[in-house]
Amino acid sequence: MSFSNIMDSNSYQGGQLDDPLIAARNRVLGPAYRLFYEKPVHLVRASGTKLFDADGNDYLDAYNNVASVGHCHPHVIDAVTRQLSTLNTHTRYLHEGIVDYSQRLLATFPDPGPGGSYQIMYACTGSEVNDLALRVAAMHTGATGIIVTEEAYHGNTAAVNAISPSIGGRTSLGPHVRTVSPQLEPAEIAAAIADLRENGFGVSALIVDTIFSSDGIYPDPLVLAPAVSAVRAAGGVLIADEVQPGFGRTGAGMWGFSRHGVVPELVTMGKPMANGMPVAAMVARGDVLAGFANEVPYFNTFGGNPVSMAAAAAVLDVIEGEQLIANAAAVGGDLRAEVTRLTAENPRIGEVRGAGLYLGVEVLDADGHPDRAAARWIVNAMRERRVLISVCGAHGNVLKVRPPLVFSMSDVDRFVAEFGEVLASLAE
Amino acid sequence: MSFSNIMDSNSYQGGQLDDPLIAARNRVLGPAYRLFYEKPVHLVRASGTKLFDADGNDYLDAYNNVASVGHCHPHVIDAVTRQLSTLNTHTRYLHEGIVDYSQRLLATFPDPGPGGSYQIMYACTGSEVNDLALRVAAMHTGATGIIVTEEAYHGNTAAVNAISPSIGGRTSLGPHVRTVSPQLEPAEIAAAIADLRENGFGVSALIVDTIFSSDGIYPDPLVLAPAVSAVRAAGGVLIADEVQPGFGRTGAGMWGFSRHGVVPELVTMGKPMANGMPVAAMVARGDVLAGFANEVPYFNTFGGNPVSMAAAAAVLDVIEGEQLIANAAAVGGDLRAEVTRLTAENPRIGEVRGAGLYLGVEVLDADGHPDRAAARWIVNAMRERRVLISVCGAHGNVLKVRPPLVFSMSDVDRFVAEFGEVLASLAE
Repeated sequence: MSFSNIMDSNSYQGGQLDDPLIAARNRVLGPAYRLFYEKPVHLVRASGTKLFDADGNDYLDAYNNVASVGHCHPHVIDAVTRQLSTLNTHTRYLHEGIVDYSQRLLATFPDPGPGGSYQIMYACTGSEVNDLALRVAAMHTGATGIIVTEEAYHGNTAAVNAISPSIGGRTSLGPHVRTVSPQLEPAEIAAAIADLRENGFGVSALIVDTIFSSDGIYPDPLVLAPAVSAVRAAGGVLIADEVQPGFGRTGAGMWGFSRHGVVPELVTMGKPMANGMPVAAMVARGDVLAGFANEVPYFNTFGGNPVSMAAAAAVLDVIEGEQLIANAAAVGGDLRAEVTRLTAENPRIGEVRGAGLYLGVEVLDADGHPDRAAARWIVNAMRERRVLISVCGAHGNVLKVRPPLVFSMSDVDRFVAEFGEVLASLAE
Repeated sequence: MSFSNIMDSNSYQGGQLDDPLIAARNRVLGPAYRLFYEKPVHLVRASGTKLFDADGNDYLDAYNNVASVGHCHPHVIDAVTRQLSTLNTHTRYLHEGIVDYSQRLLATFPDPGPGGSYQIMYACTGSEVNDLALRVAAMHTGATGIIVTEEAYHGNTAAVNAISPSIGGRTSLGPHVRTVSPQLEPAEIAAAIADLRENGFGVSALIVDTIFSSDGIYPDPLVLAPAVSAVRAAGGVLIADEVQPGFGRTGAGMWGFSRHGVVPELVTMGKPMANGMPVAAMVARGDVLAGFANEVPYFNTFGGNPVSMAAAAAVLDVIEGEQLIANAAAVGGDLRAEVTRLTAENPRIGEVRGAGLYLGVEVLDADGHPDRAAARWIVNAMRERRVLISVCGAHGNVLKVRPPLVFSMSDVDRFVAEFGEVLASLAE
């Protein structure tokens, strides 16, 4: 019930009606539309890690994970244009694109064990595939109880909204949902399981973003494996929501779950999958998927279409060709080290956490408590210096630094220089 | 519980494992994936109303409404490529694209009356916006009861699956859903309202595809207005699902609901909106949207992004520039007249129904009953003659003819010639 993650702490509604574009926007878009920053950014073009406004000022993008292989990457543009000029239909006709891409994607996955091989279903958004994964898990387990972390965000359909405590507002969690801390303490998991059983829901799934981003970015310690064992013993499955950590962001392989030594029954992915084209997928162990997929004639009109597959394949090409996972590890490590060094003696900065190119920086008040207002101030001060970041976490006080994977060492230098200036202003 | 619409009657699972592409596809995609036609079509390129296989054979597309302005339309390709090469972010930054497009789109809508002006929210699929519309309606009305037609299909999220009786299988309708015939008889509507009230759900919305396509295509008589009046008197709203009839398909203006003389509180749209790019939208009367949009921080990552808006704007350009609504009226009228003439004396063909470029043709057995097997046979025989259609309706016996809006008079001639040959074979 916190409005704490991307949903609110760095977004602003209405206001600035003297800007004719904002005034026009407020007339035609519903009031759910918010803008980032007290002084919104009006961008007109982008390239790599840079975004540009109409005056030609460049902004360093330290926030956007969708343009994962860099804004306007020519290889992705070429692939989309070529396929769009050739054929774009749907999966009820045969096409090599979906088969070739699926084979490549599945080759990045571990052996799922005796439950048979992984299979894929495509959709357009992370919300859609999380919604689907809940249905698949329910059909397989015969149970509906879901365990999520206390600030989880898994999407915006009715079903996934009901398992997303970070949304808050009048939209409450479903009665079949129990929350646990991102530390996944064994006692919490046991209590959630017991309570779901007592209330007749049973245990369908534990669903986690394996870098716990909306909870505030908790990459370590690696506490997932024992929780998964307990959930499985209770009849449930693991849904790894890789929308945030997937496709190499953590610098430790393609998938966040691998860092935790677990092999999920269901894996969902989206945002960075096609560098901004609306592409998402659910990977499922064959035996877990069978019950749903043989019974329900699910069809997604745009999911897995030839253009989506061409875009997604181009993203894989770039991740491999430009060695972006190694870059996430190296540059992300450098970023974390530099920020840690810069803030080591600063009482307003707490933990600096992260994995690869996903960094969380705690902002505290003079008494060492979470300081949402100061975090917001830093985000806006960084925006004034043309460096784009945001916030996350239960208290809205964790700076979220999550740049495109092509972030360079010189981008780190620029980020750290500006961050140093902003922190100096905060201390004054 | 019929599996009757696009979901099943013209789709085939597995099979043909001697085709290496099908075998590979069956390994990597889940078993929910089906293929059209007994002998699936393997397409490699497309243009206008023609699809081509690897041997260069051309297929006449009389089925695909997504590529509404024609396959691979150069204006849409140019718009997407240009924007993809410039900037593709999200709606938390200011951008002219979403404001300009929204103004153009809303200009095609009627005055919504005293409830204030219409506003828009964007997503990626029709399923997402129908899911959203249900939430908006529930928040506004304080009720959850939904009235749908008996073979309705509104999408594939958990919430819209629960209001889609055509899905059938183990996925049942929700307890808050009542079905009525596509004739929307006043007594049926009254009974549904009474039953929803008695069971404590109240009346949230009547949701209809205004051409009743999965019900079997019932464009006339125009029975919607009295049903809407009854639903409104019971506190509910009208959700017009324009995924099928919208964007000029009926030949009578942009929106299917206009033909019925009603002005909906909520309108959803998708498939043809961006000619194959995953773009969808919900248009809502401001007073109906306010409760939800002020409370729930809904955000859709890809929804309304600059590339989606560029694609959608290009589609509007083409609809206007090539006068495709007038084309749908003229060519659709010709198609219907020709098919009516061709089949007038044929006892195996019942009603020929439609509006604009959406035609339904009933297939009957010798006793005048719906004949699903014969309809399936016709669809496959047409495919052998390289004309692509499908089936719909409660009995799976209504041929569904729904070509791109650029269908020409010579396309009609080709369609009618092949259809005549197929009907002659059926009669033998």
